[in-house]
Amino acid sequence: MSRPTPLSGFPEFLPAQRVVEQQVLTTLARTFELHGFANLETRAVEPMDQLLAKGETSKEVYVLKRLQDEGTGDAGMGLHFDLTVPFARYVMENAGKLEFPFRRYQIQKVWRGERPQAGRFREFTQADIDIVGRDGLGFHHDVEVARVMAEALGKLEFLPGFRLQVNNRKLIQGFYAGLGASDPLRVMQVVDKLDKMPAEKVGELLVSDAGLSGEQAHRTLALAQISSTDTSFVEAVRALGVEHPLLEEGLRELAAVIEGCAPITTDRIRIVADLSIARGLDYYTGTVFETRLDGFESLGSICSGGRYDSLASDGRSTYPGVGISFGVSRCLVPLLGDGVVTSSRSVPSAVLVALTDEESRPAADATAQQLRARDIATEVAPKADKFGKQIKYAEKRGIPYVWFATADGDQVKDIRSGDQVAADAATWQPPGEDLRPQIVLPDRDN
Amino acid sequence: MSRPTPLSGFPEFLPAQRVVEQQVLTTLARTFELHGFANLETRAVEPMDQLLAKGETSKEVYVLKRLQDEGTGDAGMGLHFDLTVPFARYVMENAGKLEFPFRRYQIQKVWRGERPQAGRFREFTQADIDIVGRDGLGFHHDVEVARVMAEALGKLEFLPGFRLQVNNRKLIQGFYAGLGASDPLRVMQVVDKLDKMPAEKVGELLVSDAGLSGEQAHRTLALAQISSTDTSFVEAVRALGVEHPLLEEGLRELAAVIEGCAPITTDRIRIVADLSIARGLDYYTGTVFETRLDGFESLGSICSGGRYDSLASDGRSTYPGVGISFGVSRCLVPLLGDGVVTSSRSVPSAVLVALTDEESRPAADATAQQLRARDIATEVAPKADKFGKQIKYAEKRGIPYVWFATADGDQVKDIRSGDQVAADAATWQPPGEDLRPQIVLPDRDN
Repeated sequence: MSRPTPLSGFPEFLPAQRVVEQQVLTTLARTFELHGFANLETRAVEPMDQLLAKGETSKEVYVLKRLQDEGTGDAGMGLHFDLTVPFARYVMENAGKLEFPFRRYQIQKVWRGERPQAGRFREFTQADIDIVGRDGLGFHHDVEVARVMAEALGKLEFLPGFRLQVNNRKLIQGFYAGLGASDPLRVMQVVDKLDKMPAEKVGELLVSDAGLSGEQAHRTLALAQISSTDTSFVEAVRALGVEHPLLEEGLRELAAVIEGCAPITTDRIRIVADLSIARGLDYYTGTVFETRLDGFESLGSICSGGRYDSLASDGRSTYPGVGISFGVSRCLVPLLGDGVVTSSRSVPSAVLVALTDEESRPAADATAQQLRARDIATEVAPKADKFGKQIKYAEKRGIPYVWFATADGDQVKDIRSGDQVAADAATWQPPGEDLRPQIVLPDRDN
Repeated sequence: MSRPTPLSGFPEFLPAQRVVEQQVLTTLARTFELHGFANLETRAVEPMDQLLAKGETSKEVYVLKRLQDEGTGDAGMGLHFDLTVPFARYVMENAGKLEFPFRRYQIQKVWRGERPQAGRFREFTQADIDIVGRDGLGFHHDVEVARVMAEALGKLEFLPGFRLQVNNRKLIQGFYAGLGASDPLRVMQVVDKLDKMPAEKVGELLVSDAGLSGEQAHRTLALAQISSTDTSFVEAVRALGVEHPLLEEGLRELAAVIEGCAPITTDRIRIVADLSIARGLDYYTGTVFETRLDGFESLGSICSGGRYDSLASDGRSTYPGVGISFGVSRCLVPLLGDGVVTSSRSVPSAVLVALTDEESRPAADATAQQLRARDIATEVAPKADKFGKQIKYAEKRGIPYVWFATADGDQVKDIRSGDQVAADAATWQPPGEDLRPQIVLPDRDN
């Protein structure tokens, strides 16, 4: 085999990097569970008609074909491109066996059949939470998902601060309608370009493409510039002099999210009403979320979602929901790739038991097993090399302790300090921070 | 959307079943880590030439095709059908950044592009451990992977007992060579049919297909009938009067595995020399493993593996390895599907905080947050329904405790016993077994 090269768009981690990802996933999962979210894992494939059901033919889907199949065979199946489509299908398939409102989290890979190009993922991991009801879902769940995700991201202590930006579709659509726009949806699509082109250019498009007057375009841009960390945005919107019942409902809802999230905001975790956020996707009907990481704005939104009035419908019932999705790979791949964050060692082992000679392996195994029984990850040296070489083995992997059976009894050496002390495998305990690999920030720590 | 139906061969779990799978994966992962195995996750796809490199064209592979690609595009990629091929590729790709011997575990889905049929998985989860060396790997690692996997399976307390069956390719190939067989590999392939056809029929095939004399066939079958939980198999083999240096080496190695595993065997965990085990795959060169679950022999081997002298080779170095793979889905899907095992509740929540009225939601949220801060999974009632209805909500999900804010202070009710006591969210603690969903065995518990 000649040396294989990485496949563009399919990121993989080295062991020390994977430690960071694992700890991130564990923290997210535990936070979601503390809030009552049950875990689900759905199959990787869905029928093509489901994948294309929303009419989003722009979705790049990987279609599956059996190697040994001459005919069409499984041509009707493709890899899921998000976790929402499979979740909607799962809810419909199992509606009779689920209890509503149903809270679930799902952490899985998704695939996009894109042309290979720099910076584009073709396989990546997402962590989604959603709450779905049957024929109704209280608005307070919009507040809940924002709080839960903000709390989960906040627990990732190595992340810089972030801004969870909230807006409301009813608010902006009501505003455009109150303004007299003939095609509020088109206005929204043009406003959504604000992060890609200057406001002036967007203003021109609002006139030429969305049929607004200059004055209407001006007020539309003024709305998009409003943002606040408290409910003062309400007065700022009212000052623009537009009135519409849908606008009022949107203002009330957005204010409720901002107020409801106030108890968990900190300098690092900011939850902001930002009236420029629209989300391109058609299915959102109320609250919408995006998230920017301080200093990493170029990553775009690392965490997005919103309220949808109908996740699915089977004729008898509709299933409204609200959810938010964290782009695990989108956030971690650049941070790990640039070495902003890594872990203190590439193996779980806290201890290497050294070998005096090959005959002492059973005794070394027994020592290791005593340590493992007390939750201390331990490996035994692969060979009875000179001790210097065995210590080197530990050093290369970042294993902090080497254990020796000496004529005077067992001893353990902290190879970072060189301190060596007598120890008993039945009772010796390393400091808590040495028990498992730690996340480290090389630049900030040095 | 009309109600979707399950896709044959793509098993999915209900939330309570997924709890069991999650706990199994957590137990496996922690056991592997205690033995120093680092976790890896590889991408789902590999180049087709890698997937087909072993010449096993019988492997059913799912080939990927981009929906919007007219030409050949990504036709060169397919979904991995095991975790060994991706691991070999990963080791080659990253050899310069890994430390050898390299221990890794990998728990991922794999796919087989099979024709849909009952009992055949097209997507399933495997948990693999492997140790790979560069230009050499001590034999004691064969003992190590057997011990680690047996210990991990042993910790799955809901599983019945099991038999880890060990054999050695050198032993059987040396025996056939010593017997004078002209094509030892062909003999092995015929012997491998012993679990599918009667010994008499296999004996006939050994003569007609593998070119053995009646006497040679007789001794070949006699070898396959030898099994022992200690090293007494060595004498039983010698009694057959065949001699060959490779046979001697195989006997020594197999005896070493059986002796090395003796410290961890129990009534439930048996490690057995079983000379009928051959494993169909070409790449094993020494130790081979299979595993049968007591009372579920029809599942076949739930955990298999062995030693391979060359996982990969890049011209400069070869990478020998030894590994073993547990078929998580193969084992759990039938046990969960038949209701042999399930979990005590379908949600992580230990507590539901009841609502007196919608105005008290912020206070209820604060109570819930106090409990969560002490690692008690808690949800707040979705609506301020009558208390009876809120208790019903908890009951349906298996949540054991409901929390009430009363005029006399907070109280908590164990809804199984009906006991209701005063409680403080800053200090109240449920019994440990109520903290997280428990694995339960309905038949054995009733």
